[in-house]
Amino acid sequence: MPPAHPFDFDAVDADKLHEECGVFGVIGVTDAANFVALGLHALQHRGQEAGGIVSYSPEDGFNSARRFGYVRDNFTSVSLMETLPGALAIGHVRYSTAGSKGAAIRDVQPFFGEFSMGGAAIAHNGNITNAEALRRELIERGSIFQSSSDSECIIHLMARSLQRDIPARMEDALRRVEGAFSVVAMTRTKLIGVRDPLGVRPLVLGKLADGGYVLSSETCALDIIGAEFVREIEPGEMVVISGGKVESRRPFRAQPSKFCIFEHVYFSRPDSIIGGRSVYETRRQIGVELAREAPVEADLVCPVPDSGTPAAIGFAHESGIPYGMGIIRNQYMGRTFIEPTEQIRNMGVRLKLNVNRALIRGKRVILVDDSVVRGTTSRKIKEMILDAGAAEVHFRIASPPTAWPCFYGVDTPQREKLLAATMSEDEMREHLGVDSLKFISLDGLYRAVGASEQGRNNSCPQYCDACFSGEYPVEPADMIEKGFKLKTAAE
Amino acid sequence: MPPAHPFDFDAVDADKLHEECGVFGVIGVTDAANFVALGLHALQHRGQEAGGIVSYSPEDGFNSARRFGYVRDNFTSVSLMETLPGALAIGHVRYSTAGSKGAAIRDVQPFFGEFSMGGAAIAHNGNITNAEALRRELIERGSIFQSSSDSECIIHLMARSLQRDIPARMEDALRRVEGAFSVVAMTRTKLIGVRDPLGVRPLVLGKLADGGYVLSSETCALDIIGAEFVREIEPGEMVVISGGKVESRRPFRAQPSKFCIFEHVYFSRPDSIIGGRSVYETRRQIGVELAREAPVEADLVCPVPDSGTPAAIGFAHESGIPYGMGIIRNQYMGRTFIEPTEQIRNMGVRLKLNVNRALIRGKRVILVDDSVVRGTTSRKIKEMILDAGAAEVHFRIASPPTAWPCFYGVDTPQREKLLAATMSEDEMREHLGVDSLKFISLDGLYRAVGASEQGRNNSCPQYCDACFSGEYPVEPADMIEKGFKLKTAAE
Amino acid sequence: MPPAHPFDFDAVDADKLHEECGVFGVIGVTDAANFVALGLHALQHRGQEAGGIVSYSPEDGFNSARRFGYVRDNFTSVSLMETLPGALAIGHVRYSTAGSKGAAIRDVQPFFGEFSMGGAAIAHNGNITNAEALRRELIERGSIFQSSSDSECIIHLMARSLQRDIPARMEDALRRVEGAFSVVAMTRTKLIGVRDPLGVRPLVLGKLADGGYVLSSETCALDIIGAEFVREIEPGEMVVISGGKVESRRPFRAQPSKFCIFEHVYFSRPDSIIGGRSVYETRRQIGVELAREAPVEADLVCPVPDSGTPAAIGFAHESGIPYGMGIIRNQYMGRTFIEPTEQIRNMGVRLKLNVNRALIRGKRVILVDDSVVRGTTSRKIKEMILDAGAAEVHFRIASPPTAWPCFYGVDTPQREKLLAATMSEDEMREHLGVDSLKFISLDGLYRAVGASEQGRNNSCPQYCDACFSGEYPVEPADMIEKGFKLKTAAE
Amino acid sequence: MPPAHPFDFDAVDADKLHEECGVFGVIGVTDAANFVALGLHALQHRGQEAGGIVSYSPEDGFNSARRFGYVRDNFTSVSLMETLPGALAIGHVRYSTAGSKGAAIRDVQPFFGEFSMGGAAIAHNGNITNAEALRRELIERGSIFQSSSDSECIIHLMARSLQRDIPARMEDALRRVEGAFSVVAMTRTKLIGVRDPLGVRPLVLGKLADGGYVLSSETCALDIIGAEFVREIEPGEMVVISGGKVESRRPFRAQPSKFCIFEHVYFSRPDSIIGGRSVYETRRQIGVELAREAPVEADLVCPVPDSGTPAAIGFAHESGIPYGMGIIRNQYMGRTFIEPTEQIRNMGVRLKLNVNRALIRGKRVILVDDSVVRGTTSRKIKEMILDAGAAEVHFRIASPPTAWPCFYGVDTPQREKLLAATMSEDEMREHLGVDSLKFISLDGLYRAVGASEQGRNNSCPQYCDACFSGEYPVEPADMIEKGFKLKTAAE
Repeated sequence: MPPAHPFDFDAVDADKLHEECGVFGVIGVTDAANFVALGLHALQHRGQEAGGIVSYSPEDGFNSARRFGYVRDNFTSVSLMETLPGALAIGHVRYSTAGSKGAAIRDVQPFFGEFSMGGAAIAHNGNITNAEALRRELIERGSIFQSSSDSECIIHLMARSLQRDIPARMEDALRRVEGAFSVVAMTRTKLIGVRDPLGVRPLVLGKLADGGYVLSSETCALDIIGAEFVREIEPGEMVVISGGKVESRRPFRAQPSKFCIFEHVYFSRPDSIIGGRSVYETRRQIGVELAREAPVEADLVCPVPDSGTPAAIGFAHESGIPYGMGIIRNQYMGRTFIEPTEQIRNMGVRLKLNVNRALIRGKRVILVDDSVVRGTTSRKIKEMILDAGAAEVHFRIASPPTAWPCFYGVDTPQREKLLAATMSEDEMREHLGVDSLKFISLDGLYRAVGASEQGRNNSCPQYCDACFSGEYPVEPADMIEKGFKLKTAAE
Repeated sequence: MPPAHPFDFDAVDADKLHEECGVFGVIGVTDAANFVALGLHALQHRGQEAGGIVSYSPEDGFNSARRFGYVRDNFTSVSLMETLPGALAIGHVRYSTAGSKGAAIRDVQPFFGEFSMGGAAIAHNGNITNAEALRRELIERGSIFQSSSDSECIIHLMARSLQRDIPARMEDALRRVEGAFSVVAMTRTKLIGVRDPLGVRPLVLGKLADGGYVLSSETCALDIIGAEFVREIEPGEMVVISGGKVESRRPFRAQPSKFCIFEHVYFSRPDSIIGGRSVYETRRQIGVELAREAPVEADLVCPVPDSGTPAAIGFAHESGIPYGMGIIRNQYMGRTFIEPTEQIRNMGVRLKLNVNRALIRGKRVILVDDSVVRGTTSRKIKEMILDAGAAEVHFRIASPPTAWPCFYGVDTPQREKLLAATMSEDEMREHLGVDSLKFISLDGLYRAVGASEQGRNNSCPQYCDACFSGEYPVEPADMIEKGFKLKTAAE
Repeated sequence: MPPAHPFDFDAVDADKLHEECGVFGVIGVTDAANFVALGLHALQHRGQEAGGIVSYSPEDGFNSARRFGYVRDNFTSVSLMETLPGALAIGHVRYSTAGSKGAAIRDVQPFFGEFSMGGAAIAHNGNITNAEALRRELIERGSIFQSSSDSECIIHLMARSLQRDIPARMEDALRRVEGAFSVVAMTRTKLIGVRDPLGVRPLVLGKLADGGYVLSSETCALDIIGAEFVREIEPGEMVVISGGKVESRRPFRAQPSKFCIFEHVYFSRPDSIIGGRSVYETRRQIGVELAREAPVEADLVCPVPDSGTPAAIGFAHESGIPYGMGIIRNQYMGRTFIEPTEQIRNMGVRLKLNVNRALIRGKRVILVDDSVVRGTTSRKIKEMILDAGAAEVHFRIASPPTAWPCFYGVDTPQREKLLAATMSEDEMREHLGVDSLKFISLDGLYRAVGASEQGRNNSCPQYCDACFSGEYPVEPADMIEKGFKLKTAAE
Repeated sequence: MPPAHPFDFDAVDADKLHEECGVFGVIGVTDAANFVALGLHALQHRGQEAGGIVSYSPEDGFNSARRFGYVRDNFTSVSLMETLPGALAIGHVRYSTAGSKGAAIRDVQPFFGEFSMGGAAIAHNGNITNAEALRRELIERGSIFQSSSDSECIIHLMARSLQRDIPARMEDALRRVEGAFSVVAMTRTKLIGVRDPLGVRPLVLGKLADGGYVLSSETCALDIIGAEFVREIEPGEMVVISGGKVESRRPFRAQPSKFCIFEHVYFSRPDSIIGGRSVYETRRQIGVELAREAPVEADLVCPVPDSGTPAAIGFAHESGIPYGMGIIRNQYMGRTFIEPTEQIRNMGVRLKLNVNRALIRGKRVILVDDSVVRGTTSRKIKEMILDAGAAEVHFRIASPPTAWPCFYGVDTPQREKLLAATMSEDEMREHLGVDSLKFISLDGLYRAVGASEQGRNNSCPQYCDACFSGEYPVEPADMIEKGFKLKTAAE
């Protein structure tokens, strides 16, 4: 029996971790908002719930449009884009956070504030781990919050700064803020980009042929507008771009960087380049590592589409087992906003994925997926594969067990919902009912991303891997206040 | 410079041939319309412009809903689906035809007619080649047409039949009709399926666990609702399903069948089964044939996503050259309805595809695509690949040159717009500016689809391959009247 | 307690008889559809549910737009009106009929048919009393109906006529049709107007300064576009307007005319002119008659707004009792489409009307209303007046008791719902709980409309007054088949 | 020729002064928001552009909905009203101000602020004359404004107050504010109402049968929900309603009151009661005074509908000249938001008003209107009346010449656009081209509203009549800063 309202959800994606945001900004081009729309379209995988653009022109001042839904369904109409004139614009795409009860347009960024020296808009990727304490303090002092977003703290802190120019106010504000943030901001004349001292979330600088500058979460969004990739904004760096010049500032105390290793595994697009490496190549290399770490005799290496594809190609290449599309993805799935029950979530995978029965029948199949979160989708896929007549099913996972929630801008279930938080690898294998289940080791992952031949430097890890290790580089203050327990020495 | 309204089109798909319709029907289940919605969702690749569902319940009679846009964006709301009660329903998805000036909701099927013995609804996949002559005759006799669709002739012919039951009227009507048709129809008590004598378009029969029956363009839509694949409706067969029984009739004179070979190449979903073969496997085999027919030294086999992927996997496997994702497709592209200019069409590929630059750089790349229609997209892709630093670019095409328009339910450009209609393979290679360009031979294609080891039986071809060969199994009467020239003996 | 969803209905209007349609057409002006939109806006009181316009231009052919809701909310957008080019256009506004289960856009006129000699569109005001018999016959012969409207018969009869030009086909068709009809139609070159032989519904001819011609249900719609009133189309007349010429035809056998007397009482706008008399003046005169027929001592003459106003002015003038606005109407009520329960209908008057308490308190009040249908509103108004402290309440009704349904294009409740069908005047007074209740006499009404000093000619009444007298000038064949009982000699 | 897009405006109303807001609040009833919707519907004449409702329930907290358009078109859907649960709710309707460039939903009230002791919402009728100075100061200190509304100052002043409960913060805030304000506010447990010390705008208290309390701009909105009128909130009074008790506070220094005299003339609904008098009766009395002050021989007294009607009734009664509806108003006009040109505004009256030609022809007509603002509509009406064949046209205006803009919450054109600011009565008569033109005298108006038999007390006027006299009871500080010149001794 199909569900009564069959498409109320997006079953496969619902069982993934989700990047919560993408940011993009352009200065120095005619109709900057059109470039931002294109950039956000290329960053849509970082946030599908809503998007917003703010632009500025001397004649029309600041203008803003915020919409639920895909960039292509909103920021494509002539009539809307004409309301966003000017040579300077920033934008934001966001994913809805699991806990929020009903999305509201007032939570959609960029956020805007009018100060005595002029207006500013900010777009934030990441998560402020002391946002609730800051919000309480600001309300106590008379600030009125318009959204439930942690990011709104930044603009209120800027409003209250005594500095006389906006970049300086932004430095003031961001020094009060803890957690992960890559921020793109704009004033009437400046495009500003900042990464937190650990550099948890990405942010890159690009340049257009005719002199404009671009800030973007990922390089794939530079490609779409034909911008040249200049460099990554460095952890703890602020760039202020104006009059064709890029000024670099260092508002924070220097620290060892902790880039999110999951950006390599899943969040970033495979055609983006991080740390000088193609994300696709890194993922393929994860497949190679996995084939070395956890080989198995089989007839077919089959990706769970689409995120498992590069690792499956690597696994097949390294193992010599033929690669094939055993699971076909429906191209016409969208994203909807109604929260499905656990039961419907199980049922729903079939709406998006179908088994290529003729290929699978009688074969020993290796399924390569990027991660296991709740395990609900994995279980369903295994059932579909067995129903189609597979002889054996082996799962190979391109990341270590996800045992801890992320508090730095990723939508993760509560810890107890994470399969790996409550089960060992063996228990998971049994729970999923597969012939074998193997995750790449943490060291294997570090090798694949090119950190070091030795793998992870346990005394000072080269990346933030809190979701695997439980080692949080920034203490999640708000969450601890709410009762979250950090990893104990015993664990 | 990005285009002013950046997403007004769908650049890659615009340079493909397009199946114009998918049909689906269910009898014998509660809330049949929900099953139809799921089935149409699985058939969405056969028509993205619009969809419609008609249902019947004894209490509420016939109800109908027709909408522009994707199935998942319309036939998902509780309030809409509640208007379609009953245990019997049929549905249709359609693609807009190139020539039509503006889409109108009245052109969206199913079409409905109230006769003295009760109502009937029909959904038609294919094209009636003598529709214009029939329409003139029917108007002369007092019929009032509501749409510009060729399919509407069928319901008017049924209305005028002197037969006293609806299936018999349908036989009457379809014997007047020439061309290609797979029709799913319903009365108050019967679900009916028919294929034209040549069996140009597909139609399959499925069965649900609890006794319901299903008719569908493809088997992939049986999978989504958990129906078992029973068999294909045979060319020239009519099935009348009622009271849990499937009655088979043969209203037409028997003829050798001419199934559309392009369904194997591109139209059908890879997880569908046609003639007992997985479409995916056929496409992979085309890649194998192509690697044998047209080998080349290279470093990377790279599909043009997504339709070129199975053939590329086959090519890589046969040739031993590594397979890799050199081109990344943006998952968030949709379909829009504004007709782009040729110039914008060239520019627009970048909105959907991006090159995986790090993978491509310095490599000799074999690009595997399913077909070349106008050639505009192929040229653009070649440029992107070269810009990214490829050393050589070799095109391998999984179908023979498309040199003739289809008149049997496929949206093709006029003959003079088809690259292969005006250029030899060599001229095309030069026009596209690639290092080599090879199409699979017609015999190779026939081998890959499993027709015969010898390939095509030229005295009586096993398939309709008019788009490649110019040999039309049914004379396109309306088009000839409008001036279309059939292939001459000299050609 | 207010109702849960407070505005789901339109309480006062719900207890009125309702004209079902207004028609309008223009030929010989640039952008004829704009004129039609204005005309329909002026005729909105004749039908608020939906409206439609068809236009023709040689370049663009026939175009059509049909919408639910007010004219001003639809036919006002540049983008819509630009789709209706040409110098010839017709339009229609309609009221929903009580019995229809859910309105459908396919029931909205004008109806269009493509014939072998070209297309035609028709807009019909009235009701065809043998429509169901005709529909059965047409379906039997192979016509496919698109709507549930009686008016669609006309276009199918035209389609099947053997005449070679469209006006002749229309004559053929209308000679088959019984009942009341004022039709405006168009071909590619002609604007056509017809009234049934009895002339039950109005239709007038106007002329624009620059040579264009206009057909309209009422003269008030000529005023809005600055057209000069030429004359009424006569009962049984067809006018064919083309090339600046008005040709008059007589397709029907001559009969004594039977114009609807309720057009004078309520349906027509007070600023329209019928039979050479201002409707406002006629209504004022009804008030004068009423004051003579049914005087009463009182302090205040108060209209039930807005339809009772002219008669109240006449009553006050004749009686010498001061006129005052004791009931204030909320200007912001609209029309909605949800069917209210009888209970909610009672409650709802207060949403539209409020008592001017300070004026009413302690006074003997004469309330002048145009008619009593179900009596629900009258009762509620009486209660509001008494709650506000009136000393006495006297109802004076500007029409005789409405005891019979209309079958000629007016939405009336079933006979048993009409208060006057089941109660004598005295019983009604008691039921309403007022100090006195008087209806104008049938003779008084005939005097007021200027028919004759003697009143009604009972042997051959000058008007159709079936709703008062039960004497139907055309036998309502379909209704009789369904069980409706005509007045017996005993009644 | 009709205008190209015929309904882009509302010609008659465009030439009136407009009240900018209505406010309404309820405490102590189930589903308070439904009551507020009804109340706002009854207050729709005070603001047609947009409306908003905030409700509070302990389970769901504060909820808010703000919409453009009529109350009945928005706050009627079950699904919307279900989002506004609770026993406490306030609402607001607003008119767009002439100067604002494009309406934004963020300008629609109520405004909401979350403070450390809980949330509060406010709805404001009136205008703060020092809002711009306050806004500058608040921004300087770090407040971020969300709207362009003057009313937002109040909530920011409250946020910054050091008082520990919300009513006390409101007192703090309102003591900083100059101008006219009637405010309805709510906390989680209290409904609050305040009028400024002069009591420029109205605010009344009502009581529901089952113990709930109501605050409303006018008494007519008490009637619709069946609430009993208790009393007016006094100038300078704050009422805090909670737990079934009404506490009265006096936060401001006492001053002589200055109620807006134009509320009597035009803004308030005729069925409301102000200062113990029916507004209808006051307007009728103005007509009586006018007939005494400015008699003229004529055949017909005719109101300019609908606002001139009560005065016309009074004029006819006092003069003995028959009253008649010489101008008929189209009931189906709505309000649209596109700004018409002066030229179109002239043309457009005909869309809303039509002359009752048969009544007017050959008569000497007295037209009674409530006011003359720009004079554009008056001129057009005069033309229509003369075109219809009137022998003479005499204008009688139920207010003195409007020569000064209002800065206390009324939308008035700039001073130079007011006809009376630049012309004497004689020049106006000539400009309008009428046979005579007379305004009621200021003393006559004061007599009619019942202020005193002697009329206006010039040393301390009993009302605010700044729009007539140029004597502003509160200095319009922001406007003076922008260059507005107060009346000089010489004027």
